[in-house]
Order: sequence, then structure tokens, then C-alpha cells
Amino acid sequence: MAKMLIAYHSRGGNTRKMAELIHAGAGGLKGIQVDLKPVVEVEPASLLGYDAIVLGSPTYYGLPSAEVKKLLDESVAFHGQLEGKVGGAFTSSANIGGGNETTIMAILQALLIHGMVVAGVPNGDHYGPVAIGAPDRRAATQCQEYGRRLAALTKKLHG
Amino acid sequence: MAKMLIAYHSRGGNTRKMAELIHAGAGGLKGIQVDLKPVVEVEPASLLGYDAIVLGSPTYYGLPSAEVKKLLDESVAFHGQLEGKVGGAFTSSANIGGGNETTIMAILQALLIHGMVVAGVPNGDHYGPVAIGAPDRRAATQCQEYGRRLAALTKKLHG
Amino acid sequence: MAKMLIAYHSRGGNTRKMAELIHAGAGGLKGIQVDLKPVVEVEPASLLGYDAIVLGSPTYYGLPSAEVKKLLDESVAFHGQLEGKVGGAFTSSANIGGGNETTIMAILQALLIHGMVVAGVPNGDHYGPVAIGAPDRRAATQCQEYGRRLAALTKKLHG
Amino acid sequence: MAKMLIAYHSRGGNTRKMAELIHAGAGGLKGIQVDLKPVVEVEPASLLGYDAIVLGSPTYYGLPSAEVKKLLDESVAFHGQLEGKVGGAFTSSANIGGGNETTIMAILQALLIHGMVVAGVPNGDHYGPVAIGAPDRRAATQCQEYGRRLAALTKKLHG
Repeated sequence: MAKMLIAYHSRGGNTRKMAELIHAGAGGLKGIQVDLKPVVEVEPASLLGYDAIVLGSPTYYGLPSAEVKKLLDESVAFHGQLEGKVGGAFTSSANIGGGNETTIMAILQALLIHGMVVAGVPNGDHYGPVAIGAPDRRAATQCQEYGRRLAALTKKLHG
Repeated sequence: MAKMLIAYHSRGGNTRKMAELIHAGAGGLKGIQVDLKPVVEVEPASLLGYDAIVLGSPTYYGLPSAEVKKLLDESVAFHGQLEGKVGGAFTSSANIGGGNETTIMAILQALLIHGMVVAGVPNGDHYGPVAIGAPDRRAATQCQEYGRRLAALTKKLHG
Repeated sequence: MAKMLIAYHSRGGNTRKMAELIHAGAGGLKGIQVDLKPVVEVEPASLLGYDAIVLGSPTYYGLPSAEVKKLLDESVAFHGQLEGKVGGAFTSSANIGGGNETTIMAILQALLIHGMVVAGVPNGDHYGPVAIGAPDRRAATQCQEYGRRLAALTKKLHG
Repeated sequence: MAKMLIAYHSRGGNTRKMAELIHAGAGGLKGIQVDLKPVVEVEPASLLGYDAIVLGSPTYYGLPSAEVKKLLDESVAFHGQLEGKVGGAFTSSANIGGGNETTIMAILQALLIHGMVVAGVPNGDHYGPVAIGAPDRRAATQCQEYGRRLAALTKKLHG
């Protein structure tokens, strides 16, 4: 049984809704257990227990929030031990061109530095799902597909 | 009289339309001459004659097109001589989350390496204007405001 | 009299040393006052009083530390009011290819989103100074030159 | 038998040497065939025949060269068909802080947009190997390890 964590930071609820949609997409596959948690409740040591880690943040100044970054900074205690796990990222943003892609790439960079494995999306939101404001139908589809996609990759590598 | 070049690559016409809107925005200011050219017609040496260089590209794989990159590569013949000029970037993209921000940041990185001066936008498309498909009203406003903003900065630094 | 703030986060002292070197470079110019502060001591409201803001961070997972990000997140209370100020960034990193350039670009993106003005460096560390471990002679020169360069731009725009 | 392509652009020979070192590292594994080619000799259609595609470029203005970008642009004819393949990137650069990380991230972004799978490196050059000038001992080790790492991932996913 492969295990995936979806951890999110959300003030207004948009990033949380995205997390739930990704959870629904990933959870639709057999043979994978998917946990959903606010990022502030994630113990860095608990990351070791997952085969995939997907992080969501609101877009704050084109980057993940300090709360998300804090978890990444604290994860240094386990540096090297996350190698080969699957990683992913998503964000909600106020505007098109509002820093959403750079937020996702920032999270992916951090996960790559852990030696994690990351996958892009050929159709739709290429680096990871983006919602402009509350997730609309387009964003919801992106989130569900992304969940499915990462779950399938996780099962292939760790199932 | 300050001089600005807006150079664009456009296959389907969307990036060209953005260039024209930025041109209209910048050209509305007195004391600045604004030229508009397809990037393939720009001689690298001609860059020396401008106080501001604004480059537009379609989003091809999250980066400027090879045609835009070719001009940047050839501009190495004048490396160091573009220092202090004002730079800017814009792109048209098929999708939200389609690589548009990374395309703009890629162009801005190249301009920073020339020692150029770059400015962001606090409201709207933060790194530079983005159109999803043909520029709609939102994108048109972003382009015109961006033109005005860069023209004002150019006049302040080089007028 | 133009005013510049150099704010840094430093655990081991390397980023602090870089901050001091940039301070020395910037402070060599007449007509500019340069303040040096740990980032955790910077009140977000105090940013309004500066014409230039230069942020330094250790490279933590290819991004600025949560401490630096916290200041950026809190600065949202003054969004739009930092427009036109000069911005800059620097970092110390454990390795070449260790995430240093992406850390600097991450900070610059945040400053661009504030509408700030950013300048690159045609020779040397193009996006901002990088030290690999403790700043060596090469890095020290980069820092001093960067301080001078940003101070000159600040005086030109706000002096 | 899994198949990997290492395609490079090299004017002075440094990026070619890196490609050869990655080739040596990847070729040391059984069960994988590794081809080495200058990027200008790669037919876009031939990409379909590989399970892994690793692209190397000199650092030109913080981005891959126009020659590398041309191959990426032309690969759009096969968009969607490279999904799930393993991707990687490497670069040679004139300086520390010289745009090398942004060049690698730019290539990785393009490969992610194809839906490819990318892996980071927990120790050393996190996003992919970087040489400052001709590859020294440090860079050579990074290249060989990177080849091994990507070959192992390719075998796991496609062997």
C-alpha cells in the first residue's frame, strides 16, 4: 500500500478546496492511502512515512507562504531520506500572472533538492494546478487529474 | 528624447497584438519615442540605440521561443553595453498555468544578465503582461499600463 | 538623502558577512544612508522609510528561509506602497549548483511583485551576490560592487 | 532494454565533456542503452524512441541556447507523446552565480510541460550538474552520479 500526503496552507479556504479535490482524484485509485493535513499540523518526521508529498500554498509574493517554507526548512533534519519519493505542488492565486507558476516551481525546487521525483502535465496546468480565486470547474478538473496522475506515478515507483 | 524598442515574436498574432497595446500605452507619454518590430528584424547592434528594450514571445514550453532566444544569444556581442537600460517582457499563452510566468521570468533573467533594470507591477500581472489566447480586455489593460509604466521609468532614468 | 536597508537572515554568519560587505560597498557613496539589520528585527512598516531594500538569506531548499519569507508575507499590509523602490538580493549557499540562484530569483520575484525596481550585473554574479560557504575574495568583491551598484541606482531614482 | 538520449549543444567543448561524463555514468548500468548526440543532429521524431531525454546546454543569458530551444520548440509536433519519460538537464557556465541554475531549471520546465518525470539530487548540484568552465573533478563526479541516477530511475519506470 503506497502512501501519499497532501499538505496545504490555506487562510481563506481556496487552497484547502484544491487539496480536497486532489485528494479526491488521488483517492480514487486502489492501492494508495492518501492523507490530507494542514501544513502546520505536519510533523517533519512524519514525512518519512510517505511515498509521495504534495504541498499546496496560497500565492504570497510569488512564493509559498512562510508557513509552508517553515515545514520545508525543518525537513532538513531528514535531508537525504526523502530521496526518490514523489513530489507535487499546487497553489491558489488572486490573478492570472499573479505569481502562481513561480509559487509552484518554488515548491518543486525544494522537493527536487530533497532528491524527490516530480512530474509535469502535458495538457492544462503544466507545473501543477492553479486556481484563480476559488477553484472553478477548470481548476477542479486540473486538481482531480493531478491527484490521479501523481497517485499513479507513486504506485508505479513505490506500490 | 528617450527611446524604447518593443520587439516581439508572434506566429498567430496574439503576441503582436500585445506588443501594439504596450506600444500604445508607452507612446501616450511625451518625451519618448517607441519603436515596434518583429524580433527577427532586430539587428543586435541596434539594441545599443535604445534606452529601454521590451521583449515579447509566445509561451513555448514555458520559455521564450528560439527566435527570441537567438536575438538574446547574438546580443552577447554587445555584452556590458546594455547596462542600465530598462527591460521588460510579455507573453501570450494557451492556458492559465501554461508556462506564461516562467516565460516572462526567463526573458527578465536574460535582461538582468545584461545589467538591465527591470520593474514589477504591484497590481495585475506582476512580472509582465500575460494574455491567455487573444488579449482580452483584462490583458489589454495590463499591456497598456505596462507600457506607460516602463516608459515613465525610462524617462526617469534616461530622459 | 536616499536611504537603503540591508536586511539579512544568518545562522552561521556567512550571510551576515555578505550583508556587511554590501553595506561597505553601498556606504562608500555620498548622499545615501545605509542601515544594516537582521531580518527578524525589521518591522514591516519600517520598509516604507527606505528607498532601497536589499534582502539576504541563506539558501534553504533553493529558496529564502521562512524567516525572510515571513517579513515578505507581512509586508502585504503595505502592498503598493513600496512601488518604485530599488530592490536587491544575495545568498550564501553550501554548494555550487546548490540552489543559490533560485534563492536570489525568489527574493527578486517577491520584490517585483511589490512593484520594485531590480537591476542585474553584467559581470560576475548576475542576479545578485552568491557565496559558497564563507564569502571568499571573489564573493567579497561581488558584494561590495553590488552595494555600490544598487546605491548608485537608488541615488539616481530617489536621490 | 531501456533507452536514454543525452543531447547537448557545445561550442567550446565543456558541455560536450559533461555529456560524455553523464554518458559514462549512465552507461555503467546494465539494461540501458545510452545514445550521445549533438542537439542539432537530433530529429524531433527520434525523441519518441527514448525512455529518457537528458539535455545539456551552455549557459547563455541564464537560459539554454537557441539551438537547444529550437529542438524543444520543434518537439511540439509530438506533444503529449513524451509523457512519462524521464528528463534531465546539465549546463556549463562561465561563473558561479552566472545563470547556471536558471538554465537547468529552464530545461526542466520545458520537459515538465511535455509531462516528463524529473528527479533532483539531494547532495551536490541539486537540479542537475553544473560546470564552471571546463568540468573539474567536482563537476565530473556530479555528472557521472547524475547519469547513474537518471539511468536507475529510467530502468525502474521503463525497464
